[in-house]
Amino acid sequence: MINKDVTLGIDIGGTNTKLGLVNKQGFCLSELSIPTGADKPFDEFLKVVVDSVDKLKGNIDHQVNIKGVGIGAPNGNYYTGLIEEAPNLNWGDKVPVVKEIEARLGIPATLTNDANAAALGEMLFGVAQGMKNFVVITLGTGLGSGIVVNGELIYGHDGFAGELGHTTVFVDEGRDLPTGRKGSLEAYVSATGIKRTVFELLAKRIYPSELRDITYNQLEAKHITEAALRGDKIALEAFDYTAKILGLKLSDTIAHLSPEAIILFGGLANAGDLILEPTKKYMEQYCLNIFRGKVKLLFSNLKGSNTAILGSSALAWTEFERKSKA
Amino acid sequence: MINKDVTLGIDIGGTNTKLGLVNKQGFCLSELSIPTGADKPFDEFLKVVVDSVDKLKGNIDHQVNIKGVGIGAPNGNYYTGLIEEAPNLNWGDKVPVVKEIEARLGIPATLTNDANAAALGEMLFGVAQGMKNFVVITLGTGLGSGIVVNGELIYGHDGFAGELGHTTVFVDEGRDLPTGRKGSLEAYVSATGIKRTVFELLAKRIYPSELRDITYNQLEAKHITEAALRGDKIALEAFDYTAKILGLKLSDTIAHLSPEAIILFGGLANAGDLILEPTKKYMEQYCLNIFRGKVKLLFSNLKGSNTAILGSSALAWTEFERKSKA
Repeated sequence: MINKDVTLGIDIGGTNTKLGLVNKQGFCLSELSIPTGADKPFDEFLKVVVDSVDKLKGNIDHQVNIKGVGIGAPNGNYYTGLIEEAPNLNWGDKVPVVKEIEARLGIPATLTNDANAAALGEMLFGVAQGMKNFVVITLGTGLGSGIVVNGELIYGHDGFAGELGHTTVFVDEGRDLPTGRKGSLEAYVSATGIKRTVFELLAKRIYPSELRDITYNQLEAKHITEAALRGDKIALEAFDYTAKILGLKLSDTIAHLSPEAIILFGGLANAGDLILEPTKKYMEQYCLNIFRGKVKLLFSNLKGSNTAILGSSALAWTEFERKSKA
Repeated sequence: MINKDVTLGIDIGGTNTKLGLVNKQGFCLSELSIPTGADKPFDEFLKVVVDSVDKLKGNIDHQVNIKGVGIGAPNGNYYTGLIEEAPNLNWGDKVPVVKEIEARLGIPATLTNDANAAALGEMLFGVAQGMKNFVVITLGTGLGSGIVVNGELIYGHDGFAGELGHTTVFVDEGRDLPTGRKGSLEAYVSATGIKRTVFELLAKRIYPSELRDITYNQLEAKHITEAALRGDKIALEAFDYTAKILGLKLSDTIAHLSPEAIILFGGLANAGDLILEPTKKYMEQYCLNIFRGKVKLLFSNLKGSNTAILGSSALAWTEFERKSKA
């Protein structure tokens, strides 16, 4: 009966919530997915979480000690334990998720946003093992980020450090966003961003493209990737433009933090070299000379459906270690 | 004979080098300025430094123990102790300033760049006392910066974190810079930057301005400040534009770090509310809602000729404390 200590990782998404029990080596012993029910009362969510923990334990053939709970959620604030003004959850302006989970499970819980959890996942279990200064960029519907400095995830003054998706690319005439800001990075570099770029290019260019037969609402990042792999010029230019904007803004991030590596993660990262090679090229081009050739651009090596669980679990392990040392 | 422990602060500039002995309370007991002699051999500089330390001690009516030496210099690298490719010094590509100063003075020495030293000066002796997350922006000929996260100055992977002057404002058609990059922040926001903006506006606008009678080479930031205070429309618009670019890029910095405060320091900061008020306005405007109204924009409260010495001395005190704890 070795390694019976685990943490519970919970990743709360707009649609589904994933839960899993993860040991110190980053092996997920048991996992499941539940509907988040963002439109139902928060209390119902909590009940399903409690039931789920029993199920997770039941799926393992030995006893486990859950040493802590790590929760990743959009706008999750590490300091307050509140989900604050999350755009996809209708549970109120400030959801006391840490307090309620601790009360129902009787286990210490910690909260942060999903991208921060992903950064901790990379540091404990992934490609950033041994690194003390790195940045994780999650490329999904939007663009999230988690920043590690001197071996610690940074939360800043109020818990909201690492919101690189909301830095500005084009100040006055940039693309609109639900945040009310204009021209933010995530309007260009994300699954949604590259789709918007494709539509701009379909208007601007005159050569044929298989993407001319897909509606805006139908178009997904994977269609753009597949078209690019078949040599579609619009799709290829869309990747190049996305990479240019990402490389440019990564050069700003490098000027702030001088990290050892930047790690790309999430849907758009599945495009592989279509996104990695041009991003690397532009990033180097836009960097100040003292940074050139020094910063690794990598993909996450955490694969599979439980990556988000690993990140949340890593948050719990990090907190458990921190408290053990204190 | 109280407080006889001091550190030696050395600020190496392109033209002059300032040295001073500073106690733990941030009081500069003795200071002097020497020509840097950037075009003479490095060895001559070192000899003058050694002589200067004797003079500094001689100016004080009691004995002092110099616990450490802190050195601020352009492109000074904390990790290597080398001044690397400094644009204004002809002492070689990698100047071993820490090694040589330690050898000649027999005292532990630490190096960083001038803006990082300024940040430590604010944390130990200035307006950032008690703050754990803040950014110092130095507005001189260029734009330097020092970043403190979780109570520590951050150096990043290789010693070069905090180069915000080299982030990009305008990617393709930006102003040229000696670095070879285009459109960097410091080309817009610095004493040189606002002067370039004035010349653009003199070309763009048709209304009269007292600045139309000053050549490019004669124009200094103080002329622009004085003109603005007299209501000169070109000068006022130049401040507004400078503040807009600074506010925009500070909103990017806030999205990275979520600091408690941003502290402005140096020549252009002398313009007072001409720069502070519009910068605050634009910074708030460009911030994501979760950051609005939360980040203080302040001026340094370290005044006088020895501010740079205080910063370098603060570096030495920080290092002395760190080693005492270890």
